[in-house]
Amino acid sequence: MAVISLLTDFGTDDEYVGLVKAVIYGIAPGADIVDLCHRIEPQDVAGAAFLIASAWRYFPEHSVHLVVVDPGVGTDRAIIAAKSAGHTLVAPDNGVLTRILDNDPKARIVRVENRAFYRAEVSRTFHGRDIFAPVGAYLLRGVPLDRLGPAAPSGSLRRIEMAAQRVDEKGEIVGTVVWVDRFGNLITDIEVDEGYNIRGEENGQTLQVRIGGRTLTGLHRSYGDVEPGRALAVVGSRGTLEIAVNCGSASEKIGCSRGDPVRVRFDKAGR
Amino acid sequence: MAVISLLTDFGTDDEYVGLVKAVIYGIAPGADIVDLCHRIEPQDVAGAAFLIASAWRYFPEHSVHLVVVDPGVGTDRAIIAAKSAGHTLVAPDNGVLTRILDNDPKARIVRVENRAFYRAEVSRTFHGRDIFAPVGAYLLRGVPLDRLGPAAPSGSLRRIEMAAQRVDEKGEIVGTVVWVDRFGNLITDIEVDEGYNIRGEENGQTLQVRIGGRTLTGLHRSYGDVEPGRALAVVGSRGTLEIAVNCGSASEKIGCSRGDPVRVRFDKAGR
Amino acid sequence: MAVISLLTDFGTDDEYVGLVKAVIYGIAPGADIVDLCHRIEPQDVAGAAFLIASAWRYFPEHSVHLVVVDPGVGTDRAIIAAKSAGHTLVAPDNGVLTRILDNDPKARIVRVENRAFYRAEVSRTFHGRDIFAPVGAYLLRGVPLDRLGPAAPSGSLRRIEMAAQRVDEKGEIVGTVVWVDRFGNLITDIEVDEGYNIRGEENGQTLQVRIGGRTLTGLHRSYGDVEPGRALAVVGSRGTLEIAVNCGSASEKIGCSRGDPVRVRFDKAGR
Repeated sequence: MAVISLLTDFGTDDEYVGLVKAVIYGIAPGADIVDLCHRIEPQDVAGAAFLIASAWRYFPEHSVHLVVVDPGVGTDRAIIAAKSAGHTLVAPDNGVLTRILDNDPKARIVRVENRAFYRAEVSRTFHGRDIFAPVGAYLLRGVPLDRLGPAAPSGSLRRIEMAAQRVDEKGEIVGTVVWVDRFGNLITDIEVDEGYNIRGEENGQTLQVRIGGRTLTGLHRSYGDVEPGRALAVVGSRGTLEIAVNCGSASEKIGCSRGDPVRVRFDKAGR
Repeated sequence: MAVISLLTDFGTDDEYVGLVKAVIYGIAPGADIVDLCHRIEPQDVAGAAFLIASAWRYFPEHSVHLVVVDPGVGTDRAIIAAKSAGHTLVAPDNGVLTRILDNDPKARIVRVENRAFYRAEVSRTFHGRDIFAPVGAYLLRGVPLDRLGPAAPSGSLRRIEMAAQRVDEKGEIVGTVVWVDRFGNLITDIEVDEGYNIRGEENGQTLQVRIGGRTLTGLHRSYGDVEPGRALAVVGSRGTLEIAVNCGSASEKIGCSRGDPVRVRFDKAGR
Repeated sequence: MAVISLLTDFGTDDEYVGLVKAVIYGIAPGADIVDLCHRIEPQDVAGAAFLIASAWRYFPEHSVHLVVVDPGVGTDRAIIAAKSAGHTLVAPDNGVLTRILDNDPKARIVRVENRAFYRAEVSRTFHGRDIFAPVGAYLLRGVPLDRLGPAAPSGSLRRIEMAAQRVDEKGEIVGTVVWVDRFGNLITDIEVDEGYNIRGEENGQTLQVRIGGRTLTGLHRSYGDVEPGRALAVVGSRGTLEIAVNCGSASEKIGCSRGDPVRVRFDKAGR
């Protein structure tokens, strides 16, 4: 049996996550359940969309991912299940899978409508327990995607606007802080080639990162490359540019948060 | 093997929950352990009593539930194990199982006294690790209830006063906010028939909910039924009346918290 | 298969812990994973060192423990794996295993250098996912320690200074608050013989605990031994002296926190 991951905005102050697992284990005893994250801010579809898009590829093939950030629960919004690269994702049709759908136009997608795979009694406010959990557990047990409901063309599904790096008229890369983690690291959407010439020794060019009124020079290998308390730019674990402070919080020190812009250019070394 | 759930006030800042699981896995390898909730306020027996009473029926039959909210740990308070509807609950005899015992007068109950099922060394301050965890794990493995200790008559066990809806002299239903969840939803103890005539189109009667100086009219189907930021009454996932704010916090907007009263009456539509 | 425990400073606001588990399950499906604690303060090596030293013995033999509090991630600090008393601990060489190494001079230790047991792609900022998780999972599957890398003599490894009780010139035991838990209990490093004469009835001597300007008399059996709101000294679940307040927070009431001194002496009863 494969892994089932849970990404929700349920938090851990209540019994909601526990009930989702109770239902999963009732249908798929012994399942390997992973709490991907439950501290998505309430109704933060964009945050969950970012997180699932970078996280799912670390799971083993045949994993099932339940993404339950669902302000429209109980309305007529659809629930969809999408199969991509051997994984199955189940989510409300509210754009939370935007990047995954965009990256795989050939993903097989269905509307989840077959009540045979729901709990017998379905509440209007907790589809995580009553629909997502049993559907995910049945998928784990091998129920084929097309038994869940009718095919849904990818183009008919909702998308949200997701930050994406661009190059402006001056040739600078303009990106966005898309996540701030527990350590205060500022995660951006600027993809960095890890092979990039560190500190710009080649060609007399140096990476310059501008964020929150500061300029950071060069791309460092690790947090410990600078003295404690100093800010630096690194390639983060998601493969994108990350602004950090060694043994401190870049978010606090630089005063930035999600949505703030980041600009990158290459300049003469030492300038 | 069945599921074992954990409901405690241990929080997640310390290693306490981890040690409970370490002991369980040592006795029952491969057990399906569910964290029902660990963020019960310290010593909040009433909160845990509410939560377990509504949660346990979502678990598969033969589940074991450890309820460790236990301000009397190490004193001479008893530990009890109760079997009801195929589930086994283990808890201190402090009233945390009040509703479950009241709802099932025929539950089989024992005092947990057989030290053969404790850890060899029992501390005076952490029975979760030293008694509850091993006893729960042995129950999972099939140890029969009566091997744990002598039968305890239900009537001899402690109860706590639990809020319960009542009808006052004017015919209004008077209930209580019994839980405030992560989203700021105000969960009441007023049981609602889901089939109830939504918005009172029948008989010219409309549901009126009074809470914190406000009156909410009608019973809505889902949070998304009203505009973002607006308060509404819905049937919550526990089958009781819930006051919510679409994409917001009812607790903040209405200024209510646990223990506050809620009044419900039916009135002429539009009044 | 045995148990694998995770002790990190990752918190639970992000997907970091979930990704560690995704990688573990990918290599060791069905593993029993225990979250020992993820709320170690960022980079708090000393806190993690205290916690793992008292926690690991509650796990079943053959457990694997990943300790990932690692401010030097991505620098040239080594990662070590140590086998002691049938358990295997994997940690950065930053002193987080100080007490375990000191207590078992014969522990077998290797430097983890064999990239065959890493993820294929190793980031510079998240070795928890890319090195610790796969190495731990392979250890669970039975890969022998010496396949991970060359032997490392214990004396060559980093230690940190850890608080340890001492006896001063007046014969008083001087210790330190080494942890403050969720309940506000002040955990000290003063080891107490549980058989100690409670309240000093023997020999006319009474235990006197001085902390934060207060003196507490006698050693109590349980929190409930004193009235709610009163401070007391007990033998905590780690076998050391603990200062608590029944149904309250000793940390708040006494105004103490980690690192604060505690003094213990024996005195005439009643003085």
